[in-house]
Amino acid sequence: MPDLIRSSAHLLLALAVAAPASATQRETRIPDAALATAAQLRERALADGTAWQVVESLTTEVGPRLAGSEADARAVAWAKAEFEALGYDKVWTEPVTFPKWERRSERAEVLGTHAQPLAVTALGGSPGGTVEAEIVRFADLAALEAAPDGSLAGKIAFVDYAMARARDGSGYGPGSRVRSRGPSAAIRKGAIAFLMRSAGTDSHRNPHTGITRFDDGLAPVPSAALSVPDAEQLARLVARGATRVRLALDCDWNGEYTSQNVIGEITGSGPAGKRDEVVVIGGHLDSWDLGTGAVDDGAGVAITMAAGHLIGELERRPLRTIRVIAFANEEQGLHGGKAYAEKYADAVAKHQIAAESDFGAGRIYAFNTSAPAHAQAAEAQIAGALKPLGIEPSDKGGPGPDVGPIAARGAAWGWLAQDGSDYFDLHHTPDDTLDKIDPQALAQNTAAYVVFAYLAAQAEGDFGSAPKPATPEAP
Amino acid sequence: MPDLIRSSAHLLLALAVAAPASATQRETRIPDAALATAAQLRERALADGTAWQVVESLTTEVGPRLAGSEADARAVAWAKAEFEALGYDKVWTEPVTFPKWERRSERAEVLGTHAQPLAVTALGGSPGGTVEAEIVRFADLAALEAAPDGSLAGKIAFVDYAMARARDGSGYGPGSRVRSRGPSAAIRKGAIAFLMRSAGTDSHRNPHTGITRFDDGLAPVPSAALSVPDAEQLARLVARGATRVRLALDCDWNGEYTSQNVIGEITGSGPAGKRDEVVVIGGHLDSWDLGTGAVDDGAGVAITMAAGHLIGELERRPLRTIRVIAFANEEQGLHGGKAYAEKYADAVAKHQIAAESDFGAGRIYAFNTSAPAHAQAAEAQIAGALKPLGIEPSDKGGPGPDVGPIAARGAAWGWLAQDGSDYFDLHHTPDDTLDKIDPQALAQNTAAYVVFAYLAAQAEGDFGSAPKPATPEAP
Repeated sequence: MPDLIRSSAHLLLALAVAAPASATQRETRIPDAALATAAQLRERALADGTAWQVVESLTTEVGPRLAGSEADARAVAWAKAEFEALGYDKVWTEPVTFPKWERRSERAEVLGTHAQPLAVTALGGSPGGTVEAEIVRFADLAALEAAPDGSLAGKIAFVDYAMARARDGSGYGPGSRVRSRGPSAAIRKGAIAFLMRSAGTDSHRNPHTGITRFDDGLAPVPSAALSVPDAEQLARLVARGATRVRLALDCDWNGEYTSQNVIGEITGSGPAGKRDEVVVIGGHLDSWDLGTGAVDDGAGVAITMAAGHLIGELERRPLRTIRVIAFANEEQGLHGGKAYAEKYADAVAKHQIAAESDFGAGRIYAFNTSAPAHAQAAEAQIAGALKPLGIEPSDKGGPGPDVGPIAARGAAWGWLAQDGSDYFDLHHTPDDTLDKIDPQALAQNTAAYVVFAYLAAQAEGDFGSAPKPATPEAP
Repeated sequence: MPDLIRSSAHLLLALAVAAPASATQRETRIPDAALATAAQLRERALADGTAWQVVESLTTEVGPRLAGSEADARAVAWAKAEFEALGYDKVWTEPVTFPKWERRSERAEVLGTHAQPLAVTALGGSPGGTVEAEIVRFADLAALEAAPDGSLAGKIAFVDYAMARARDGSGYGPGSRVRSRGPSAAIRKGAIAFLMRSAGTDSHRNPHTGITRFDDGLAPVPSAALSVPDAEQLARLVARGATRVRLALDCDWNGEYTSQNVIGEITGSGPAGKRDEVVVIGGHLDSWDLGTGAVDDGAGVAITMAAGHLIGELERRPLRTIRVIAFANEEQGLHGGKAYAEKYADAVAKHQIAAESDFGAGRIYAFNTSAPAHAQAAEAQIAGALKPLGIEPSDKGGPGPDVGPIAARGAAWGWLAQDGSDYFDLHHTPDDTLDKIDPQALAQNTAAYVVFAYLAAQAEGDFGSAPKPATPEAP
C-alpha cells in the first residue's frame, strides 16, 4: 500500500506541472492491430487464474514477510522461482539495503479499578520500552500539536482520530499523518509514550501497524496503535476520569539488511531502440508482519506477474520489453523503489511508462497517465480498451509508491485506480489474508494491467518520459 | 451464550414431552388492564436508553470478566451496585463455587520452510504444554472419530469443520461439538495435541474460545482453536505436504473460586401467594476473557436489568415479583444456573415462568413458552402484545442455558428468540465488544422482555410450573 501516499501525491503535483506539452512533437498512436490483440488479451485475462494462483502461493508458502526478516529471503527466492515458472525471458535480482526493524512482543493494559488488556501493535520504527502513565486524549493531531509545550510531561499522548472510508482512500492522508507525525509531536510536548487509534476503517480488535519516524534531535518513545474498538474503549474510560495505562513494547532497529528487488522481463521483439525500452509494472514483495500481505501487496505482485505472463504467452513478443518488478521493502520507506530509481537514473528515457499495483485487490474503476499533449490520443486509446472492464478515464492519480522515485526523475506513469472502499479494513492488520481477495476482481485487475502494459509497449511514440533532476522528497 | 445449547435442546425435548396438558384445569388468562399497561411499557422501553447504559457501563468499567478472575469479583460488585442504582427493591448475592481455569499465554506457529505464526486460542479447560508435531487434518469430527486407534500417535489432530451461519444459531450444534468432543476423540487416537477451526462464522484473525471437557480416564492434551483464516491457511499448507506446528499453551485449572449469582427483585404487590411467586429473567454476568463480553452476555444482563427497572417505575408494582438474575460462570458449565436450581429446588412451583437472554443483541423475532394447554391462551395473549415488535409465535425454542436447570426441575420457561445471524462472528472472540451492539435492537429486546415479564406477573393462573425430579444432564 502507499505508505507514503501523501508524498506521492506531492510528487504527482510537481510532475503535472513539469510535464512538457510540445505542440510540434509527433503524436503518439497505438496501431489497430495492437488494439485487437489487447482485446483478446483482456478476455483471456478475465478467464485466467494465474494471478490467484500466484497470490495463493505467496501468501501461503511465504506468509508474512517483514522486510529484513527470515521470510524476506524466502520471499525473494519465491519471486525468482515464480517468474521463472511463469516463462519470463529474463529473471534477476538487484540489492536493496536498509535498516532492519524487529518486532518481538507488544502489550498494553489499563491499570487500576477498570483493569483490562488493550489490543495494541507497535508502530514500525518504534523503540521498545515499558511505561506506566496517565493517558491524555486528543481528538486529532492538531489538538495534540496545539497542547502547551511540556504539558504532557510523564504522560502518554493518545490521538483518537477516526479516519474516513472512501473509494479512493483519501481518508488515509489525515489518518496516516497521525502515525507519521504524532510521535514527534507528542515527544515535543513531553510525552513518554504515544498511542493512536489505528488508521483504519474496520471495527475489529486488530490494530493497524505502519511505519513512523521521529524527527531529528528527538529521543524516540514507545509508539503504538490501538485497534478501533480499543481506542473507543480507552476514550470512554478517559471520559470517566484519570486512566493509567501500561505499555510494554519489545521492538527496535537492529543493524542493516540487504534484500533484493526481483525483476522478470518479457523481452521485446522490436528493433534495438524499441526492445531496450521498458514498460514497468509491479508491486511490492515485502509486507507487514501481522497478516500474510494478501491485499498489501501480494495482490499487486500477482496481478502484474500474471499480466506479464499472459503477454509472454502471445505468439509474438511485444515490441518493447515488459519489465515486472517485485519491489523490496516498500513499507518502511520505499527502499526498493528508491534503489531502482537510483540504479536506472541514466535510463529514465528508456522507460516508456511505469505503473504499480499497490492498493489492494478491488476492481479498477479509473485510469490516467502523466501523458503530455502529444501522447493524450494514445492514452485515450488505452482508456477505450479498458472501458469494457468498467474503467473510466480520470484526471486524478499518480505513480504507485515504488515507481514514484523513477517518475520523480522524469519517467511517465500510468494509474489504474482500484476501489479501496474496504482496503483500510485490512491494511497493515492480521486480517490481511488470502480470503479477503475476490478472484473475479483480481482477474479484472490483471486484465487491466495486461491491456495497459501491452498497448504501451506497442505504441508508436512515447508517453513523455524525459530525465530531469530528482525532486526532493516531500517533508 | 448457550455454551451447552445442545444439552439445553436435549432438556427441552424432555420438557416438551413431560408438559402436562390437563383439560380440567382452569384456563390461565391475562386481564385487559394488564395488556393496556404492557402496551405502554413496550413503547416506553423502545424509547428508553437504560439497557444501553447498563451494557456500556459493564463492558467499559469491568471489561472482560472470566469466571474466577480478578474481574469476576469486580463484576459482582458492579451488578449489585447497578441493581441498587436502578431502584430494585431487594438486591442480594448467592454463592457459586467452581474450579478456576486460567489463561496466561498461547502461541502457535508453522515450522520449517513455510514458517509463520498462526492465530490461536486455548480452549477453556485445556491444560498447558508445548508440543511440536506433524498436523493430521480431518474435515469434520466424524472423520477424526473414524481414524484408526493409535493412528495419531505423536501427531496433532486438526479438525477443519466450518460451521454454518443461521438466524437461529443452529450451526453451533455441530460446530461446538467439535470443541466439546474433539479433544477426547483425538486423545483416543493417540494425538498429543488438538487444533480446530473455530466454531465461528467470521473471517477475522480472531479465534473463538469456549469450554471443552476431557472424558474420564483420558490424559488431557493441549487443545486450541485457530481463527478461520488460519485454519484455511493450515489446510492449504497440509495439502502441500507434511506440515509441522509448534503449539505452546500456558493455561490450566488452578483451585476453586467462589463467585456469586447477583439477584435483584421488583417485589410483587399482590396478596401472599401471589407476591411470593416470581417471574425470572436474566443473563449471565461472566464472559470469556478475549472480548469485553458485550453480546455474550452483557446484552442479556442489560436487557433484563432494564426490563425489571422499567416495570419498577410503574406507579404500581405487578402482582407477582420480578426476579432478575445475573448468573455466575455460565461459560464453563452453567455453574450459576445449576446453583440456582439447587437452592430453589423446593420452590419450583413458585416460579411463574423463567427466561434468559443469552444469544446476543439481535432483534427478537419469535416467541414461545412451555405452556401446557390451560395456559396457551395466555401465551397467545403475550404473543399478541409482542406482535407490534415484529415478533411471531413459534413452536420452537427452550429455556436459556442458566434457567435450563430450574426448567429441568419443572419450572415453566419462555423463549424470546434473538436473530443470531451475526452472533457467531463475535461469540467468544476478542471482537465481542460494545460497538457490535445496535442500541435500537437492544431497546427492542428490552421492550419484549418488559412485555413478557409484566404480563406473566399479572396473569390470572399459572404457566404449568410443577416440581419433578431433575433430568439428568445430557451426556
